[in-house]
Amino acid sequence: MVYITRKEHFSASHRLYNPDWSDDKNWEVYGKCNNPNGHGHNYEIEVTVAGNPPKETGMVIDLKKLSDIINKEIIDVVDHKHLNCDVDFMTGVIPTAENMAVEFWKILETKITGGRLYSIKLYESPNNFVEYRGE
Amino acid sequence: MVYITRKEHFSASHRLYNPDWSDDKNWEVYGKCNNPNGHGHNYEIEVTVAGNPPKETGMVIDLKKLSDIINKEIIDVVDHKHLNCDVDFMTGVIPTAENMAVEFWKILETKITGGRLYSIKLYESPNNFVEYRGE
Amino acid sequence: MVYITRKEHFSASHRLYNPDWSDDKNWEVYGKCNNPNGHGHNYEIEVTVAGNPPKETGMVIDLKKLSDIINKEIIDVVDHKHLNCDVDFMTGVIPTAENMAVEFWKILETKITGGRLYSIKLYESPNNFVEYRGE
Amino acid sequence: MVYITRKEHFSASHRLYNPDWSDDKNWEVYGKCNNPNGHGHNYEIEVTVAGNPPKETGMVIDLKKLSDIINKEIIDVVDHKHLNCDVDFMTGVIPTAENMAVEFWKILETKITGGRLYSIKLYESPNNFVEYRGE
Amino acid sequence: MVYITRKEHFSASHRLYNPDWSDDKNWEVYGKCNNPNGHGHNYEIEVTVAGNPPKETGMVIDLKKLSDIINKEIIDVVDHKHLNCDVDFMTGVIPTAENMAVEFWKILETKITGGRLYSIKLYESPNNFVEYRGE
Amino acid sequence: MVYITRKEHFSASHRLYNPDWSDDKNWEVYGKCNNPNGHGHNYEIEVTVAGNPPKETGMVIDLKKLSDIINKEIIDVVDHKHLNCDVDFMTGVIPTAENMAVEFWKILETKITGGRLYSIKLYESPNNFVEYRGE
Repeated sequence: MVYITRKEHFSASHRLYNPDWSDDKNWEVYGKCNNPNGHGHNYEIEVTVAGNPPKETGMVIDLKKLSDIINKEIIDVVDHKHLNCDVDFMTGVIPTAENMAVEFWKILETKITGGRLYSIKLYESPNNFVEYRGE
Repeated sequence: MVYITRKEHFSASHRLYNPDWSDDKNWEVYGKCNNPNGHGHNYEIEVTVAGNPPKETGMVIDLKKLSDIINKEIIDVVDHKHLNCDVDFMTGVIPTAENMAVEFWKILETKITGGRLYSIKLYESPNNFVEYRGE
Repeated sequence: MVYITRKEHFSASHRLYNPDWSDDKNWEVYGKCNNPNGHGHNYEIEVTVAGNPPKETGMVIDLKKLSDIINKEIIDVVDHKHLNCDVDFMTGVIPTAENMAVEFWKILETKITGGRLYSIKLYESPNNFVEYRGE
Repeated sequence: MVYITRKEHFSASHRLYNPDWSDDKNWEVYGKCNNPNGHGHNYEIEVTVAGNPPKETGMVIDLKKLSDIINKEIIDVVDHKHLNCDVDFMTGVIPTAENMAVEFWKILETKITGGRLYSIKLYESPNNFVEYRGE
Repeated sequence: MVYITRKEHFSASHRLYNPDWSDDKNWEVYGKCNNPNGHGHNYEIEVTVAGNPPKETGMVIDLKKLSDIINKEIIDVVDHKHLNCDVDFMTGVIPTAENMAVEFWKILETKITGGRLYSIKLYESPNNFVEYRGE
Repeated sequence: MVYITRKEHFSASHRLYNPDWSDDKNWEVYGKCNNPNGHGHNYEIEVTVAGNPPKETGMVIDLKKLSDIINKEIIDVVDHKHLNCDVDFMTGVIPTAENMAVEFWKILETKITGGRLYSIKLYESPNNFVEYRGE
């Protein structure tokens, strides 16, 4: 079993905000991340696939194909977008890094072939990041 | 003459948009950076001060004080903000990295003492950055 | 279950030295890390908390609060200090990265609420690092 | 149980090519990585050893010795080499990152003393990397 | 005057070798970089353009266009190639980083419009890099 | 004219302290950097040499030789040392990054052959660094 990872990048803006709460509660919970006009990040996403590389190819999955899947399903949809307003699959989801990683997993889980989706790691900044392994 | 640099970070969103142009012209010039709801970045700013370190301190400028100035004048104003909507000194300025570096220079130029502001370098992403030296 | 990580930084000096050993034995085991006047590092600490983000917040733990805990309990105590001489909780502990990670775990384990401390990763340099998961 | 990691670097060239296949099949599977004259990378290898640091040393394994082992067994053999032509232990192995990590594991597994080899992580580039844990 | 930079990446192999010299002289001058089968790197190229951003666009040069030029003229030609064998514009040129930067300058100098090519920085590895400013 | 740079690393401890001042003055000027037992950093030093690469070698200076010079003259003397106590050439010099860069310049200036020493850049941390060009 080998774990292979492809990293991709996107830039997006978001606002942490729960519409069921008062403004005061939102500021209390989310602080400056609740700024009404939003703020943004250069996100990095690492997608890890686990599998046994077949002897004839030596590859768990073709990284070019993995990159194409991530770009088609995720990057093209979220890059240079406002995550609260512009992204269908984030509708009704508070765009924390935790929730984003889980949504990305749901999308990629069925698209990866030739290996098993093992982990999605999402960096909001070099100092803040999350990992989801479908557990 | 020694050049000393302090790097700081902020996260913000912006939209590249010239209000004097049609929507078509804006999409043509700015592409996906013209997304109406904006997008965002983890910006890095490097402020370089030039000077002769006095023999008794060995410092061109106290990096703690330089950091405090950058934070008070720039970071506290732009961090977790939308650069087009939330930042007074960006009013009427298209928030390209080039224009941001020039505006930051105007603000910091008069606040730096004990050395001469030499350069402002602004990273919009690891692959895209600008430098302004007041020339 | 999502794993969320906050990275913090500190600069400190230390000396690898076992007082029960002769000088020769200390030089043999620790080499240049045994320099009597010490040497130092820019350490990076990554604290990972595991949990289920509640639907209403979307957060395993508020990263601002996690950062505050790490800073209050660890960074404020070790930053710009000599680990052998200036840090109470390191008394009698040889300040290898391994031992430091275990001591940091003991301190943070009881302070983290709203999730379970999962891992402490400590970088002594980009090429040398350890991880402790409380096992 | 503490996990300790040493990172080392090497530069090498390789060609992804299965001699049992036609040229067309090789181009189809490996794309530009099949370029007959090869191409190259700055590889990074992270070797992780797991163990309980003895109280008297505080170290799972001496990082200097771990570095020496990796350099003698791996780096000196592959650095500034063509992996398909110049490296005995890669004979008959397609030099994908997956296969390289497994071959490195086989070599290092018996050389590490004072701890158990836990993981080999190999970066072909910052965006493409694999991990093998001997599973 | 603002300096704007776009960074791009490519992976290639090369051999440092002067055909006018004996084998012994080549080994003496180039050491392990003279390995006959070549070795390789993940190169990074930073292209800096200097100019005054026009008020209406705020951009010295459209970074998307600058990226397209670098990719068409340089990256597509050298990526996943052997610099000594596969690249027309390197024929008869010893592929040191110094020479590569100068050749890249010659190619890009006439392609950049809307600003003046100011610098080409080429990283062979994080520890080894060159800069050429057309002087 | 091409500028070529070699980066090297060392770990050291230091204390910012002017013996001509009172303790109070030292704390006021240097803050926590004045901790009597010192603190430390992973320093990075970038040494840049300018020159015209001769046609027959294509190299301004052999990077292996440049690395050897930096290691022999600087790294071997300061690595894993206390800069105030263990380093002869720092005697009587307050070990700020500014002063260190100037002292390194004095040492390297006469040792570099086959090119002109152009710049010494010293990183105390990723956020704090200085450059000296012998001006």
